[in-house]
Amino acid sequence: MKYALASLFLLAATATADEWRTPQADNLVYLELEQGPVVLELAPFMAPQHVKQFKALVKEGYYDGLDFYRVVEGFVAQAGDVSETRTSEHKQNLQAEFTRPISQDSDFSLVQAPDLFAEQTGYLKGFAAARDLQDKQEWLVHCPGMLAMARSTDADSGSTDFYIVIGQAPRHLDRNMSVFGRVLWGMPLIQSLPRGNPEVDMGVIAKDQPKGKIVRARIASDVPAEQRLALQVQEQDAPAMQARLKRGRDMDNAFFHFKGNGNLDICYYPTKVRLTPEG
Amino acid sequence: MKYALASLFLLAATATADEWRTPQADNLVYLELEQGPVVLELAPFMAPQHVKQFKALVKEGYYDGLDFYRVVEGFVAQAGDVSETRTSEHKQNLQAEFTRPISQDSDFSLVQAPDLFAEQTGYLKGFAAARDLQDKQEWLVHCPGMLAMARSTDADSGSTDFYIVIGQAPRHLDRNMSVFGRVLWGMPLIQSLPRGNPEVDMGVIAKDQPKGKIVRARIASDVPAEQRLALQVQEQDAPAMQARLKRGRDMDNAFFHFKGNGNLDICYYPTKVRLTPEG
Repeated sequence: MKYALASLFLLAATATADEWRTPQADNLVYLELEQGPVVLELAPFMAPQHVKQFKALVKEGYYDGLDFYRVVEGFVAQAGDVSETRTSEHKQNLQAEFTRPISQDSDFSLVQAPDLFAEQTGYLKGFAAARDLQDKQEWLVHCPGMLAMARSTDADSGSTDFYIVIGQAPRHLDRNMSVFGRVLWGMPLIQSLPRGNPEVDMGVIAKDQPKGKIVRARIASDVPAEQRLALQVQEQDAPAMQARLKRGRDMDNAFFHFKGNGNLDICYYPTKVRLTPEG
Repeated sequence: MKYALASLFLLAATATADEWRTPQADNLVYLELEQGPVVLELAPFMAPQHVKQFKALVKEGYYDGLDFYRVVEGFVAQAGDVSETRTSEHKQNLQAEFTRPISQDSDFSLVQAPDLFAEQTGYLKGFAAARDLQDKQEWLVHCPGMLAMARSTDADSGSTDFYIVIGQAPRHLDRNMSVFGRVLWGMPLIQSLPRGNPEVDMGVIAKDQPKGKIVRARIASDVPAEQRLALQVQEQDAPAMQARLKRGRDMDNAFFHFKGNGNLDICYYPTKVRLTPEG
């Protein structure tokens, strides 16, 4: 093939085994769609009550058979009970968990300062994150693949329905929504979901139109071991990850004739996920 | 439905008829995939030689039956002749058209200054664009849906194979690639294309694996009128468009508890496209 478009995140780097962590099975959720599995990693360090309730809902089968009922091209795919008929003891309105105070034991790893929308961006436990040093707050950023709870106007009104970002980062939602995880595996399935018309009913798909269905949702620890994907996440401080960021800043590859200004968009650099070589 | 996630670009605005333009049929290309049509608007004002050659290739049927052979989740979908066996008199290496000099008759409409990667961002004829006032250059930005020519390391080596951005804007490619159009219609089909493995052969899909096919490509003026989509693009200076940008800056909707910093990401605000109400 003659024409190859260089991608900064495709340039190979040799990674040693300890640069990758295996997420805990009780912190992963498998959304089984008709087309295959989507695996979510949860972020209890940022939104503990959202994670707790989401896991309880998953465990009781609340999401089984529900649809991605609102899918807006370039924005979000939202799932849950559009009919609002399904009941659950775990369907409680949650207090907002938009941000958390910066503390000494934060593992924040800086990537960019300033960012267009935040004083700093970087990673927290492998998730794209941002910080405001004046307000002494940090939060997870609405990058593609990020998982957050939908809500009504009241900040403390999220409970069951969630969305996944499928387009250019909607950064105005940062610090406005409780982000509680991200997709580790299966984004192409989310990107393939039937869309609604954004100009009609906020993109909610009409009753008689096809929708993507959650056949079943399970905590990974409830999935038989042989059915689990052996996923690993590259550590944010891994030398290979830091080298990738450096290549992005320097752009010293001959492919690039214009060398940029050294700035990085945190949402272009999700930490990598792989199936373990032995998995 | 109780839980509605407010989207800045969904908030309704009344638009008058003259806020929308109908793109010229000889400046649109229909990529007919097995799943339906994808419509591209070309940008001859930025990359005239790329547009000229692309249209000549389309007209002679060069792309008919070729595949999206390299599709990397969160990055690009690239199409063309992976086998490099197809010949054409129009398969010429093109001189780079990465930027153009800022001139007095530019219709650049400012949105954001400074942007994270450019001195200014805004629109040129409805396409996301950026400017460097020092270098006196302007260019089209690699937002989702943007169309550009693939190339090898040599800046002047693009000829036939093209890519469409399908993920968070790869802004390091700005000023490095000849962007010559964008998708007006059919992005969900592009987002549904079979992916390659980014860790293997730069994401080129293995020979025996399923790929999305271009059944036929045609200039819209060669498509029978009754088969054309009656597409319109909202003018970049339309009051409704400017009001949408203002809502993004002000975030004065009660849904937003954190009001942002007034900055806008040009790639989150593509100019709107619609099927004409009477179409």
